[in-house]
Amino acid sequence: MILVPLCVLLLAVAPAVAAAQPTADESPVTLRWHRVTPAVVEGKGWTDTEGDFDRFPARAKDDLRKPVWDLSQHSAGLSVQFVSDATRIRVRWTVTQDRLALPHMPTTGVSGLDLYANERGAWYFVGGARPTESPTNDADVIVGLSPTPREFRLYLPLYNGVSRLEVGVPEEATLRFVPSSKARPVVVYGTSITQGCCASRPGMSYTAMLGRRLDVPVINLGFSGNGKAEPEVARLLAELDPAIYVLDALPNLTPQQVDERMPAFIATIRAARPRTPIVLVEHLLYPNLRFRKEKAADVATANASLRRIYETRRQAGDRHITLVPSATLLGTDGDGTVDDSHPTELGFARMVDGLEPHLRRLLPKTQTSR
Amino acid sequence: MILVPLCVLLLAVAPAVAAAQPTADESPVTLRWHRVTPAVVEGKGWTDTEGDFDRFPARAKDDLRKPVWDLSQHSAGLSVQFVSDATRIRVRWTVTQDRLALPHMPTTGVSGLDLYANERGAWYFVGGARPTESPTNDADVIVGLSPTPREFRLYLPLYNGVSRLEVGVPEEATLRFVPSSKARPVVVYGTSITQGCCASRPGMSYTAMLGRRLDVPVINLGFSGNGKAEPEVARLLAELDPAIYVLDALPNLTPQQVDERMPAFIATIRAARPRTPIVLVEHLLYPNLRFRKEKAADVATANASLRRIYETRRQAGDRHITLVPSATLLGTDGDGTVDDSHPTELGFARMVDGLEPHLRRLLPKTQTSR
Repeated sequence: MILVPLCVLLLAVAPAVAAAQPTADESPVTLRWHRVTPAVVEGKGWTDTEGDFDRFPARAKDDLRKPVWDLSQHSAGLSVQFVSDATRIRVRWTVTQDRLALPHMPTTGVSGLDLYANERGAWYFVGGARPTESPTNDADVIVGLSPTPREFRLYLPLYNGVSRLEVGVPEEATLRFVPSSKARPVVVYGTSITQGCCASRPGMSYTAMLGRRLDVPVINLGFSGNGKAEPEVARLLAELDPAIYVLDALPNLTPQQVDERMPAFIATIRAARPRTPIVLVEHLLYPNLRFRKEKAADVATANASLRRIYETRRQAGDRHITLVPSATLLGTDGDGTVDDSHPTELGFARMVDGLEPHLRRLLPKTQTSR
Repeated sequence: MILVPLCVLLLAVAPAVAAAQPTADESPVTLRWHRVTPAVVEGKGWTDTEGDFDRFPARAKDDLRKPVWDLSQHSAGLSVQFVSDATRIRVRWTVTQDRLALPHMPTTGVSGLDLYANERGAWYFVGGARPTESPTNDADVIVGLSPTPREFRLYLPLYNGVSRLEVGVPEEATLRFVPSSKARPVVVYGTSITQGCCASRPGMSYTAMLGRRLDVPVINLGFSGNGKAEPEVARLLAELDPAIYVLDALPNLTPQQVDERMPAFIATIRAARPRTPIVLVEHLLYPNLRFRKEKAADVATANASLRRIYETRRQAGDRHITLVPSATLLGTDGDGTVDDSHPTELGFARMVDGLEPHLRRLLPKTQTSR
């Protein structure tokens, strides 16, 4: 059997055909479709949402700036777990926006899904589903699996909303969704980088990678261009009771806004959660700062502000606040981003290498994810 | 100054506006455009090409299968070097195909350009240019550079052809193209993976990364889905006089085709180049082979065939042939690809980590690139 060279198919044929999934097995199979309900969605901070795959509660709509609200309807960081012995797994999903890709991020990351399976406690990539049209797609994720019961995790789109999601397996296969985890999650608040720009598929955003590495639920509260540390967002974060808060919003704040907003943002969370660890992440040292002195100075100023805020809190007796320096979060060779600010998977892997030890140290020793 | 959150711009505004480059400096500047001529294109094996940025000579057109010829008109692996003291660098380029992206590879990698600058002998990413329409785009790569003369390298699109390319700098800036290197190159023959699918930008294909790491010109002869080890392609490769041949075509060959074609392919090259190192690369161990026994068996069979071919040649006295095992080329966590076969930058970086020591050992000690 030859492994299907999908890239070339796309060169030769019409778009609709070209985008056909690389199914090695085209034999007709009767599938049974299992609809994903909110109770089994992992990575949601609130259950009282407008849509099943939204990230903020419906009641927050009027308080938030419109871009924040709109972005909260992207399914970034959400996933679904199920146990199945299926040899073939198909997905059918409906997105809320026509825009399936970004110029620097493919459809697979913006609007696609990808699947992992657990093997002896570790998660391994199984396959992905490519959207080819809006709003509804229906695509094989994997065919030819050996028929062993496995635990799967399906990651949802990073830069699109989802209004409906179903998993299809051959009718003779079993499929049981796993209720969402009751473990206290890690909550990450931030920018487009947190939201997952520019992972090639949802499972490779840095919050998803952290979740797999630490075996902990992660709530992605990244809002592209809008991680602006506003009081109404701080109040929402304070409603949660996570194991750790990670605040990674500096690239969306001017140095002045760091000074003006971050102390109050932290104070709001701290008032509600006196002993929950808060991790402050410095502004990434973007690759081309070495060539742009003015931009480099701004980043240095923002990071100096964050460090002062951190030190002020420590001196005031807050023992549950941590600062993660950015020096090594993107490596030093300049190759970690697509566009000087948004990491590729290489950059995200480096970020996770840098963040993981800090978070691992702060997680409760008894933490188990389920 | 706030760092521009491009992802969010794309959510809020119309496509044409959304895709505007993240120029921090919008002040009107009179630019002088410098057209790139074939004499300064790096990574071309032949000068007698139909288009300036083609990869095979025009006379090969009738010998080659049409898909191979068509793919040879993609500018994968080509780059251009220049020295400039410009504070702003803009590019204007015309592509040959309307399709600017693939479902699993963004426009930036398929049809975009990216720029590196040399600092004390190492190459660092400067910025990229995003195509937003077909056929011609005109975009800033970088603004706000400190005005020091630097050596730059501009990488061309991986999955599109280029019919015209110009570099624009402010009229008071100097710009001098550097003639293409006279050093013996590394020639890499292979599949979509070699061609660069699915790097997010051209400078992150594995051939481009190898070129920077080893400081050697690399000729990319990757043909998506069509690295089929045909005799007519072997004859073309044998015309070249490289420092090393790397043959990385197994994912496009059935196990049977490996047996049928690779010995003759190697023999054709060897007849012309008796002592040039030939590096055989095993089929990548795709992440989900662990879940698909049948597919895994095919890959194992293909790799066993390649090893037999390698051992037969060694036993026949060929001391200039090397085999690179695939065991570590994608890592072991399954996270190196977008779709189980095409590496992301994380996968490409791992491939380069695995390939680099073999190639470094084989390069002439006196090799200098210019």
